Amino acid sequence: MNSSTRIFALLGRAVDYSYSPLIHNTAFQALGLPYHYTIFNIAEAALVGDALRGARALGLGGFSVTIPYKQTVVPFLDELSEEATTIQAVNCIVNKNGKLIGYNTDILGFASPLFAYREALHGATIALFGSGGAALAAIEAFQRYFTPKQVLLFARDSQKAKSQLRSSLALERYTNLAIVPLSDYERVRECRLVINATPLGTKGRADGSAIIPLESNLLHSEHIVYDMVYNPTITPLLQAAQAVGASTIFGIEMLIGQAEQAFTLWTGEKMPTELVRQTVMAKLQEL
Amino acid sequence: MNSSTRIFALLGRAVDYSYSPLIHNTAFQALGLPYHYTIFNIAEAALVGDALRGARALGLGGFSVTIPYKQTVVPFLDELSEEATTIQAVNCIVNKNGKLIGYNTDILGFASPLFAYREALHGATIALFGSGGAALAAIEAFQRYFTPKQVLLFARDSQKAKSQLRSSLALERYTNLAIVPLSDYERVRECRLVINATPLGTKGRADGSAIIPLESNLLHSEHIVYDMVYNPTITPLLQAAQAVGASTIFGIEMLIGQAEQAFTLWTGEKMPTELVRQTVMAKLQEL
Repeated sequence: MNSSTRIFALLGRAVDYSYSPLIHNTAFQALGLPYHYTIFNIAEAALVGDALRGARALGLGGFSVTIPYKQTVVPFLDELSEEATTIQAVNCIVNKNGKLIGYNTDILGFASPLFAYREALHGATIALFGSGGAALAAIEAFQRYFTPKQVLLFARDSQKAKSQLRSSLALERYTNLAIVPLSDYERVRECRLVINATPLGTKGRADGSAIIPLESNLLHSEHIVYDMVYNPTITPLLQAAQAVGASTIFGIEMLIGQAEQAFTLWTGEKMPTELVRQTVMAKLQEL
Repeated sequence: MNSSTRIFALLGRAVDYSYSPLIHNTAFQALGLPYHYTIFNIAEAALVGDALRGARALGLGGFSVTIPYKQTVVPFLDELSEEATTIQAVNCIVNKNGKLIGYNTDILGFASPLFAYREALHGATIALFGSGGAALAAIEAFQRYFTPKQVLLFARDSQKAKSQLRSSLALERYTNLAIVPLSDYERVRECRLVINATPLGTKGRADGSAIIPLESNLLHSEHIVYDMVYNPTITPLLQAAQAVGASTIFGIEMLIGQAEQAFTLWTGEKMPTELVRQTVMAKLQEL
């Protein structure tokens, strides 16, 4: 009779493609939790304040936050975790008895699949493409968990990228971060790790298929190539990397990594991660 | 992959006992609709504005509204149906592309089970107990659908009941409505229809079990006794009515009646009512 369920959701814009409902509902059901996860597409940033005040009044359980609101939500929250404060970007909100607390699980979610390569990355140069919330998480992850010589942030417009980063990060803290023009993409050759933190390569997008011209043989077998895009599972960038024998990390790992932490923050329980990974991979194979 | 579901919910306070999730989720699943219905307990009236603005921003599908907010929601809505305008009480909200439209499906929901007694009620006197949103619906239903001689509203505090009604109704419109003190409950004998529009008799409530002293043999076989309380299915009042051979109408009929209309307003489809009734009755039997 009391089938009242607590609502959790992904806050973003035009993100119906997301796998987050599948991930969290699979885990909620597996643990028999009376929770339900859906997607709320917020039409514009001006509505984010109403959405969060509404969540508090309605007693929603919490949110995952994605493009383009990871920074927009920050001023409407009652408290930020230490990580979220550092990069002023939130991808997970917990409603704790009416107090909205912002977390950033992207940082550890991004880092976890890379821990196996920690030594390989010591003193290495890293190529990072993108300057949104996901790129912020990567930059902070290198600061916290790894010891690279340099992080090269490739940007179409270096000035714009710098001011975008400066709006969230205390840039002076990231002494090994350099912003380089996209036209210098040949420098990818000298890097050990190449990361796509842009939506380029996402199924259905028309704007080009990869962050670098794949036909120009920039990738080699020493590379580790990490694509944050998870749909399709193997993006054109990852295909090119596999073709030359490079190591690859699928975007699904970061997606599950950040979801795992959010799940525990919401429920206090451990996510049944292996079940979730199999369910998501099976769904991706269907496409 | 896209298991994003549209959220509908009951707005009220401490209403976890409600059968509305069971009703609407049974119907949604039967028709394969990607909708999910839950309960949002709003702690206080001061949060109702945030809740509704949030619903608009989040893109929630709509609400049922119950105690104590059927009148509270009115000022926050963009439009009211004709019925809702008449009694300034809303029990169903539809989010139509960001426009929140308030309806009152209680009126027809209350009236439908009585249509079989339309002739019996012509020129009859009716006893009505209660002065909240549900009582308003009953008063308006008699005005619209029936031709009783008089509607006697029994109230503990006649003045308070009058001002409560006046805050919603144009009282002068209801020429056959009389407010009488509760102490005159003996007049129930002269009535043909007796209605409980209070929460008295609800399972788990400590404040007395019925609107009239059941041991005082006020009920007789000519009576029609209609209890809006639906949990338990057969309230003490209905038991006393059955014992003397009176006709009885269970609260579940009004609950399903108002839900049926709300379901169609939200989905444009007809509710599978018989399946819903069986599911609810089965659940009630389990208790």
